[in-house]
Amino acid sequence: MKKILNDPQNYVDEMLDGLVAAHPEIYAKPAHRIITRAGEKTKGKVGIVTGGGSGHLPVFTGYVGTGLLDGCAIGNVFASPSADQMAETIRAVDAGAGVLCLYGNYGGDVMNFDMAAEMVSFEDDIRTASHAVSDDVASAPRGEMEKRRGVAGMIYAFKIAGAAAERMADLDEVARLARKASGNVVSMGMAMTPCIIPQLGKASSVIGDDEMEMGMGIHGEPGTWRGPIKPADDILDEMFDTLQADRPLGKGDRVSVLVNSLGATPHEELYILYRRLAVRLSEIGVDVVMPLVGRYATSMEMTGASLSILRLDDELEDLLAAPANCAFWRV
Amino acid sequence: MKKILNDPQNYVDEMLDGLVAAHPEIYAKPAHRIITRAGEKTKGKVGIVTGGGSGHLPVFTGYVGTGLLDGCAIGNVFASPSADQMAETIRAVDAGAGVLCLYGNYGGDVMNFDMAAEMVSFEDDIRTASHAVSDDVASAPRGEMEKRRGVAGMIYAFKIAGAAAERMADLDEVARLARKASGNVVSMGMAMTPCIIPQLGKASSVIGDDEMEMGMGIHGEPGTWRGPIKPADDILDEMFDTLQADRPLGKGDRVSVLVNSLGATPHEELYILYRRLAVRLSEIGVDVVMPLVGRYATSMEMTGASLSILRLDDELEDLLAAPANCAFWRV
Repeated sequence: MKKILNDPQNYVDEMLDGLVAAHPEIYAKPAHRIITRAGEKTKGKVGIVTGGGSGHLPVFTGYVGTGLLDGCAIGNVFASPSADQMAETIRAVDAGAGVLCLYGNYGGDVMNFDMAAEMVSFEDDIRTASHAVSDDVASAPRGEMEKRRGVAGMIYAFKIAGAAAERMADLDEVARLARKASGNVVSMGMAMTPCIIPQLGKASSVIGDDEMEMGMGIHGEPGTWRGPIKPADDILDEMFDTLQADRPLGKGDRVSVLVNSLGATPHEELYILYRRLAVRLSEIGVDVVMPLVGRYATSMEMTGASLSILRLDDELEDLLAAPANCAFWRV
Repeated sequence: MKKILNDPQNYVDEMLDGLVAAHPEIYAKPAHRIITRAGEKTKGKVGIVTGGGSGHLPVFTGYVGTGLLDGCAIGNVFASPSADQMAETIRAVDAGAGVLCLYGNYGGDVMNFDMAAEMVSFEDDIRTASHAVSDDVASAPRGEMEKRRGVAGMIYAFKIAGAAAERMADLDEVARLARKASGNVVSMGMAMTPCIIPQLGKASSVIGDDEMEMGMGIHGEPGTWRGPIKPADDILDEMFDTLQADRPLGKGDRVSVLVNSLGATPHEELYILYRRLAVRLSEIGVDVVMPLVGRYATSMEMTGASLSILRLDDELEDLLAAPANCAFWRV
């Protein structure tokens, strides 16, 4: 297992200890597997919490920070945190104005956040709203949005809801903006090698030496096809055309785009993809605002990349450009 | 070859096109394989140029930006750019106050920068100073500094010299500060898998399935030992102890530290290393200022990590904290 770790059982907890040790001005760990912002809460600010399995840094925990999230419940690698953890995270960030639960659309996370919302409503009288982001176009057709998984595009929902909450918008408004951002973002990914789950000590699947898988999920969920590795431009074109078929863009549209590495794929290759993306967007007259190129949502050392496109209007563009600060993203 | 590319011959140029397309407010490409800051030069500011082989993003090209570098000459993957390219880069950034050439200590780069400095002195009457960073403790003993290679620690020299130049220090002063930062930084790395050079289509060496190599260079240069993979804490301890033996730190010292992924090693594992590093530094009473954890100097998809430690004094700490902005690092 080509990983840097001690006991695989301690992978997540040692990672969290290191995160807080390195960035004590950003992250605090008030309880086991719960990360919140460091410092005092802002009274009357809507809290935003997320949660999910580990192994995707900066997702989920990394996006706790100013203008972003307030707290995160952390599960084992690729495993949902418990409803109790989520409820405790909600309690930890509540500052009297209610809490938005904003996370990726995975069965365990949805079920546990629903339970957590009931618990804090009943036990603590905390008002919550919830939204599960489902941006992964490859995971289900548009007619079955409830089956679509959440992937890298969810960081746009974090950013936009986080900016609104920082401006002291109320819970209904923060939830509305989170849903609007989520509804405006689509993503499509591809992978060439899987990642290694520490407690298994090996990859959960194998992709042949000359093969790639289009549409593979960030936990290795099956994609739309597996076959010989295509040239970068063809890969980008297929991802872009799939997103265009799902949610067409046209002349005059303004977007932000995220060319994201799933982990091992280097910056060099993300820029090779971006080069083609810039051509495709320019051809149809779409303007790009604040392009993101890097590692924003990963699966540890998975090789591959994803493309997310967020369609903007004045309201979303303003919130996207608002200040934000965490250890992984500064605006 | 599990890489996202088109023709391997175009890897570097397509990467540069994408970099400039994504960040036109930061980078400009005034000539083939030359990147400079976008926008007008500041008259009378000392220019700082670097150069080297590709495949190490953000090193070298990525660190062109405000409060950092002014220009970069770009070679093929793991190959030095030519003296002509370097001379052209120096000419492109000269704003009347001379130019510092600041790069890693590799034979080809040293020779070509020396030639380039002669060319611009003779042909253009541009005054230059030069410094080759040699922070890699594993590559040669302290008594043979001229044989030590430059690795991740060089980004501290970029940052500190860049801040001084931005404050309009003169060439002698910018060069003095670059040498001081360089003299105060030491680095040590380890690798578990090599990277794939696009034009070869395969790894340049193989490390056994259960093996790691301590001290391996960022181009696969032999390290100090190869053997079974050790636990993360043992790896960190050996890297830290090696740096301590070379350049001891003690109670009251202030440092910045960089825990750097060579590419594929995920953030999770860098934080597991950081956790142990924080304990070691705390035990000897050393304070950490602005720790960096991430991908600051890579070898594409190499698996592994490096540790760099910069000893600070008031002057260096002030310059380290000065504003800086490129696509990969914002202070």
